[in-house]
Amino acid sequence: MKQIHVGMLGCGTVGTGVARILLERADLIRARLGADLVLKRVADIDLTRDRGVRFGKGVLVDDASVVLEDPDIRIVVETIGGETVAKDLILRCLAAKKHVVTANKALLASQGNELFSEAMKYGVDLAFEASTGGCMPVIKTLREALVGNRIEEMIGILNGTCNYILTKITEDGSPFEKALADAQQKGYAEADPTLDVEGFDAAHKLAILTALAYGMQINLADIYVEGISRITPMDIEYAREFGYNIKLLAISKDRGDRIEARIHPTMIPFDNLLSSVRGPLNALTFTCDAAGDILIYGRGAGMMPTASAVVADIVDLARNLLHDSGGRVPMLSFQPEHIRNIPVLPMAEITTRYYFRIAAQDRPGVLSAVSGILGDYDISIKSVHQKGRKTNGSVPIVMITHWAKEADVQKALAEIASLDVVGDAPVLIRIEDDNEA
Amino acid sequence: MKQIHVGMLGCGTVGTGVARILLERADLIRARLGADLVLKRVADIDLTRDRGVRFGKGVLVDDASVVLEDPDIRIVVETIGGETVAKDLILRCLAAKKHVVTANKALLASQGNELFSEAMKYGVDLAFEASTGGCMPVIKTLREALVGNRIEEMIGILNGTCNYILTKITEDGSPFEKALADAQQKGYAEADPTLDVEGFDAAHKLAILTALAYGMQINLADIYVEGISRITPMDIEYAREFGYNIKLLAISKDRGDRIEARIHPTMIPFDNLLSSVRGPLNALTFTCDAAGDILIYGRGAGMMPTASAVVADIVDLARNLLHDSGGRVPMLSFQPEHIRNIPVLPMAEITTRYYFRIAAQDRPGVLSAVSGILGDYDISIKSVHQKGRKTNGSVPIVMITHWAKEADVQKALAEIASLDVVGDAPVLIRIEDDNEA
Repeated sequence: MKQIHVGMLGCGTVGTGVARILLERADLIRARLGADLVLKRVADIDLTRDRGVRFGKGVLVDDASVVLEDPDIRIVVETIGGETVAKDLILRCLAAKKHVVTANKALLASQGNELFSEAMKYGVDLAFEASTGGCMPVIKTLREALVGNRIEEMIGILNGTCNYILTKITEDGSPFEKALADAQQKGYAEADPTLDVEGFDAAHKLAILTALAYGMQINLADIYVEGISRITPMDIEYAREFGYNIKLLAISKDRGDRIEARIHPTMIPFDNLLSSVRGPLNALTFTCDAAGDILIYGRGAGMMPTASAVVADIVDLARNLLHDSGGRVPMLSFQPEHIRNIPVLPMAEITTRYYFRIAAQDRPGVLSAVSGILGDYDISIKSVHQKGRKTNGSVPIVMITHWAKEADVQKALAEIASLDVVGDAPVLIRIEDDNEA
Repeated sequence: MKQIHVGMLGCGTVGTGVARILLERADLIRARLGADLVLKRVADIDLTRDRGVRFGKGVLVDDASVVLEDPDIRIVVETIGGETVAKDLILRCLAAKKHVVTANKALLASQGNELFSEAMKYGVDLAFEASTGGCMPVIKTLREALVGNRIEEMIGILNGTCNYILTKITEDGSPFEKALADAQQKGYAEADPTLDVEGFDAAHKLAILTALAYGMQINLADIYVEGISRITPMDIEYAREFGYNIKLLAISKDRGDRIEARIHPTMIPFDNLLSSVRGPLNALTFTCDAAGDILIYGRGAGMMPTASAVVADIVDLARNLLHDSGGRVPMLSFQPEHIRNIPVLPMAEITTRYYFRIAAQDRPGVLSAVSGILGDYDISIKSVHQKGRKTNGSVPIVMITHWAKEADVQKALAEIASLDVVGDAPVLIRIEDDNEA
């Protein structure tokens, strides 16, 4: 039986999951691959912790060089995380002509262009299914299953922490802080939840997906990012009265010579399948010219789901090694000479539909003043409700607009905020509603 | 630029869709593949019909031999359908060492073992993503993305005709016949709808998926198949009162040394994502030991969605040709020597939960007689409602059971049917409810 030797850098949660699959499912993988995947060396600074995995003698080492310098090892799994040590070690692996598997979305989103270019230089593959959407095969689907399709848009729930918190607010009416505390207690949110709740983690994933979908460089800096920390039970309740749930959506659309790429809380109709994705689950819809809508749903994080995707990448690379077919699928989905610099549309220039909540004094003429300003900016109202309940001495006016331009909306809301009769800053939540396209 | 020559046998709906993608998206495919896919010959008996596709001179021919005998053609797409001519031509392609792409689920489900064995004999690939779930990458997901997972079960909506009809009954309260007529009028059902509404089409797909998931021979004959033609608006309404929708589900479960594989109308809870799959859409959930649940959703039929999957297969095979890596992924997911004969559990031996509707006379003692019989067969009732409304002079008793064995249920229902106080044959609908596992 042929053997493919695998090394691992970092054996924390995901690394342990990968080791567990490689060891405990060795028979199953052999039956499918037709070769043995041998986990030869695992480097981690902690040699003593009980990971619940029985490594063979000498497998676990505390020196990454042992992995890097082992000539038998053709595939290295990077499960260290972070952007400094991980990057340095990946570069050394690539230079040593070892194929690399990583789940490191932050690193790929910020420095992927350099890493992929190095991998190409050395003629090896850098595989990253686990970086985006945990166990969901979104990279494979984009690069292979949809290869005959123009990708028109991608809309997804790519952060389980946010989706858990929003589900909790929706179903229990908890305020954000309470829902966050609950997520932390259940292990769905980190002690410092910023990366997740402010949308950065979802932005990392969207940066990677956007590059692959449209054949462009990875461009994290131009993605608009807005988190969920200001979402209130009140807005969720009003959204539901309009037939919408609020989700943190990653949205990317092909606008011809420009790309939209943005992360923000978004209202979507109940009959959109994304609306039914509850708790820490993730999902991503690809809208394509031939296939139509394809949605993939699953666990976007966690030890074993992420390990599942890492192992799929290892086996893919092992298949390439067994058939000497490295580089069979281009890493960024397009051949390098076809990767362009497509600009991301500035947020001010997008058009979409909006929900506003305006805290107004309960006086005659307020609605007329507000709608007058909206009219001045060409924003037409689809539906408006003046709510009976006073909050902080004012009565909320909630409204849904027809399609409008973000720049106009921002200017109009600033003007509305400056009205004497308007209290707190107006709340804006964008809407994705295909039923009203 | 390298060229890969493709031939096509049959240019009906799906074939035309494939031709359209290959011709109209040639630039996009080249940018991804790094080679040109040249559709060199298309054989169809109808040379005159306007397909809206501009074939080059001499491409469209009326003789399949022209495709079979062209030495440049390395990949042949079979889009004829049926089980006689298509089989014969596929066998001739394989013998000529041409790789084959097919969407022919009926042929694969009934004679796939022979075809795959022939393909192996000649060292070529037989690709079939489009046979199961249209554009949804279910075959790729099973064979590649889930390669490190033991598949525990698969539950899917694999027939769009049935799902459209059931959605129509659910949302409009139409009887089956009216919903079917509507589906036929909209093009979602054939003039003879038997293959779809009686569950056979879904069984073909489940036979293929089951083989790939568990590493077994394709075994269509042992799949239990029950269609939707007896589903009434009344049962759908009662199901909803219990918190369930009714879907035609394809269900396959690993029971260790046996496999469950069955197609039947099934109640599933509203919070199962499959419950929200409306109209002609399809979806499939894989339950796996590492990844947990992964669901893929999309269009399971139709010209362009099916063509999308065919083109994905063509590109996969072209990548193998460019890298000389044929046979890189085993066709049936497992290496041939690991494919076993795992028996399918006879339907009588499955255990699940049940919904019964019993037409009983509105007399004292009826419920006691019915529940006495159920008790005799060890079937315990979770919930029972005696409905106020008379239908055909009797009052429906509806009940939901705890887990019970199919054989016991069938015997108990036969006994209940023979009671003097019971009218029409009792209705049985199975339930899949993870919340009550």
